[in-house]
Amino acid sequence: MKILQCVPNFSEGRDPNFLKELEAALKQFQVKILDLSMDPDHNRTVATFLGPPDAVEAAAMAVTSRAVELIDMRHHTGRHPRIGAVDVVPFVPIRGMTMGEAVEIARRFGEVFAEKHQIPVFYYEEACTAESRRNLADVRKGEYEGMPQKLRDPAWTVDAGPQAFNEKSGVTVVGARMPLIAFNVNLHTNDLDLAKKIANAVRHSGGGLRYVKAMGVRLDDKGIVQVSMNLVNYQKTPIHRAVELIKAEAARYGVLVRECELIGTVPLEALEEVVSYYLQIPDFNAKRIIEYHLLPD
Amino acid sequence: MKILQCVPNFSEGRDPNFLKELEAALKQFQVKILDLSMDPDHNRTVATFLGPPDAVEAAAMAVTSRAVELIDMRHHTGRHPRIGAVDVVPFVPIRGMTMGEAVEIARRFGEVFAEKHQIPVFYYEEACTAESRRNLADVRKGEYEGMPQKLRDPAWTVDAGPQAFNEKSGVTVVGARMPLIAFNVNLHTNDLDLAKKIANAVRHSGGGLRYVKAMGVRLDDKGIVQVSMNLVNYQKTPIHRAVELIKAEAARYGVLVRECELIGTVPLEALEEVVSYYLQIPDFNAKRIIEYHLLPD
Repeated sequence: MKILQCVPNFSEGRDPNFLKELEAALKQFQVKILDLSMDPDHNRTVATFLGPPDAVEAAAMAVTSRAVELIDMRHHTGRHPRIGAVDVVPFVPIRGMTMGEAVEIARRFGEVFAEKHQIPVFYYEEACTAESRRNLADVRKGEYEGMPQKLRDPAWTVDAGPQAFNEKSGVTVVGARMPLIAFNVNLHTNDLDLAKKIANAVRHSGGGLRYVKAMGVRLDDKGIVQVSMNLVNYQKTPIHRAVELIKAEAARYGVLVRECELIGTVPLEALEEVVSYYLQIPDFNAKRIIEYHLLPD
Repeated sequence: MKILQCVPNFSEGRDPNFLKELEAALKQFQVKILDLSMDPDHNRTVATFLGPPDAVEAAAMAVTSRAVELIDMRHHTGRHPRIGAVDVVPFVPIRGMTMGEAVEIARRFGEVFAEKHQIPVFYYEEACTAESRRNLADVRKGEYEGMPQKLRDPAWTVDAGPQAFNEKSGVTVVGARMPLIAFNVNLHTNDLDLAKKIANAVRHSGGGLRYVKAMGVRLDDKGIVQVSMNLVNYQKTPIHRAVELIKAEAARYGVLVRECELIGTVPLEALEEVVSYYLQIPDFNAKRIIEYHLLPD
């Protein structure tokens, strides 16, 4: 059985009615909603749902189309970078699917969405049409406010839709990627510089692990600091390696890990390595889990 | 959806055709075979299968009835303790079922099996009718050869079937229990006394953890020793606690863990604690795993 996940991000995070509208749009289809959460500081909503590819593609079109109707970017402010009402639409192959199939769906979705709403669309990550568009941060650079100018740059010819700015809806980024794991390590200290040093040591851009993005942040309510990570390829840079490296770097300052936080969900495959490493079971895999045998074939 | 597991143990482990007969018997029903393995030293076969309770009960009756036909205990020798052709039949509630439901099925199965084949049956573990019959080792004491005498003891009135020894088939023990986890810790030493001391320290009977059974054994082929454990209640004595205690005891001799072995399968719930402990995620649970949401409701 093929299972696809979709995790669209919307530039509206304050109106509770918006969540209800998204939920109603998704519930018309045979998809399972894993998460639907709104952040008022970021003024942003993230929906996570999965199911058979056809149902997910149709549900993605319905939910993003409803968001296009409801959001007017001309009034949008928030702390999180964004370029459009439907800011980014990643498709994630979960089970029985190749990345190539997810890319095909992403591009087809992008084309239909762009034409239907006359919104410029860029493809990113595995669906990108040029390496310069692989990274979401690069595509989003300039944000909503900078898009009129970016769309006049010949380097930023759209992948689908009009080469013209849509004032109400901005620009949308569509793509396919592996599941990413958002994982935070909370330290027993309130020293933000220390968290930043450790984040720099562990992340790829600072000379650290290839598939780790990390930053040091302060948690005001807890009076401590955190190394906040995105693990963008858990197969090649598994969770335990990033966590153990953070522990090793924290130890040079005499600091221990207070606790960790997993944000959202994690693929079962990523936990195979966690169990194998910490319990020292070299050949551990998901087939050793009873419930694995209850999953649809 | 209700899912029941059954793990019958048979006193035949040398004839490859026997395995095929068991498989054929099971395949008539809507059950999933997780494991079917034969041990010639023990002269014993263990089948592990699961599915909806009705199908599992019917498959259990078919597979055990076939084994009764094929096995003659008068010729059986092997290293593993045993009292009958169908030695022990545990039913294990996996999903959407209470232990009470599994007990009910075990007793009904035991009654029908005993009458059908005229084999004395005792109930054990959660299905036991007296505390003195809870422990499999106590019920099995005396083994096949001692059963004629045991059946004359008023303390061992059968729970089902005739109060008379069945020479060809022996006695069968039927029950319901939690999933047990067979977990071995291999040590970087060939000192068997040391493995025995550590096993004694970690197990309940030696003053150790409440739900751990353990013994020290030599692994001739690897030239090392092992602490071999049965974790009989992973909810109250989780895997990591037993493993970390073994590490702590081994450290007093300057010995490290070489690797661990998980025998058979493990319930997903038992891994929640493993991930929570080692990754220090206090609230980790299976709902955080994407595939959990693909399991049948």
